[in-house]
Amino acid sequence: MAVKVYGPLYASPKRVMVCLIEKQIDFETVHVDLFTGENHTPEFLKLQPFGSLPVIQDGDYTLFESRAIIRYYAEKYKTQGTDLLGKTIEEQGLVQQWLEVEAHNFHPAVNNLVHQIMFSPKFGITKDEKVIKESEEKLAKVLDVYEDRLSKSKYLAGDFFSLADLSHLPFTDYLVGPCGKGYMIKDRKHVSAWWDDISSRSSWKKCLEYGYPF
Amino acid sequence: MAVKVYGPLYASPKRVMVCLIEKQIDFETVHVDLFTGENHTPEFLKLQPFGSLPVIQDGDYTLFESRAIIRYYAEKYKTQGTDLLGKTIEEQGLVQQWLEVEAHNFHPAVNNLVHQIMFSPKFGITKDEKVIKESEEKLAKVLDVYEDRLSKSKYLAGDFFSLADLSHLPFTDYLVGPCGKGYMIKDRKHVSAWWDDISSRSSWKKCLEYGYPF
Repeated sequence: MAVKVYGPLYASPKRVMVCLIEKQIDFETVHVDLFTGENHTPEFLKLQPFGSLPVIQDGDYTLFESRAIIRYYAEKYKTQGTDLLGKTIEEQGLVQQWLEVEAHNFHPAVNNLVHQIMFSPKFGITKDEKVIKESEEKLAKVLDVYEDRLSKSKYLAGDFFSLADLSHLPFTDYLVGPCGKGYMIKDRKHVSAWWDDISSRSSWKKCLEYGYPF
Repeated sequence: MAVKVYGPLYASPKRVMVCLIEKQIDFETVHVDLFTGENHTPEFLKLQPFGSLPVIQDGDYTLFESRAIIRYYAEKYKTQGTDLLGKTIEEQGLVQQWLEVEAHNFHPAVNNLVHQIMFSPKFGITKDEKVIKESEEKLAKVLDVYEDRLSKSKYLAGDFFSLADLSHLPFTDYLVGPCGKGYMIKDRKHVSAWWDDISSRSSWKKCLEYGYPF
């Protein structure tokens, strides 16, 4: 039975979908419209009590939180498709480290930019230029650390593509596309080469075919 | 050789220390004073390029991000000390899920309260009552989900103590102690029983002996 992924148009579910494609796991998608509040129906809240995307259903097993789901499938099908965890326990530790950096350093700054630049106008809310400026400054500092790191290894956790890199795909795609901040990537030689590499993977191209929410 | 843990007075390093105690792994601590900026010296930035705590050194292996470090040790020493990951791959998925919930739903709200109530006064900054009110409201909603979950299983990921529970210890300790928000726990029957249980573990009591930063 194929895995059901809820909310394929949105960025966080794409983190799960690109992982499933890399791991050669069949999935089907279930549309959820955040703009009409389908994520707050009693039925949806039974699956995800916080009303967030994504959720997956795999037979009678339900799991939410995108970075938990990708860890689960990377571990469960370690030898199928692309190994996304690293060979040794020490490599795996570094994958976890950079996956946490994505979640706690990279994501909050990019997410602010996405909300301000992409989503506020859709809801008729005026962009907060102060938040945009501060978030861009924070993100620039994070990307400077990435530039240094990626001058020493091809990918974040070492010379192998992993969950840590994959986890950056959906929101960096928003950053360089609809947010119009591609120069933040392009102006950093090693970050730019890394982005060209990971965003040209066939798994990510397939993911993009599911479209955007707007 | 004992593992070196940087910054034992602070909350995030305690997340690592309580894990090491549960896993019966010897460690020693290295003092880092955030108030005098010791986390921004060139020497420290070589270990942790973002200037955050904690970092560990284990022989010539360096790792940062507390939730990455606890995953690393829980996996590396799976059969030593307390198993903190769950027995089956499905249990492990749920541990990852609730560990992500701690990081993305619980932590941001508590962290705002900690900064506003505990740390702002130390730096002569006026508390922002609006942020305090909004953060408490957000946290209340998260704890309502926990109350429901903990009415169905003894711990967050199931009927076993795991990284997901352990990860809540340092900041909930701040919440019920110095932040004066213990009623948020006590007013919820199952959350209160869970907190009494996990905070009375000898590992956590040993951790508290390292003291606070103020």
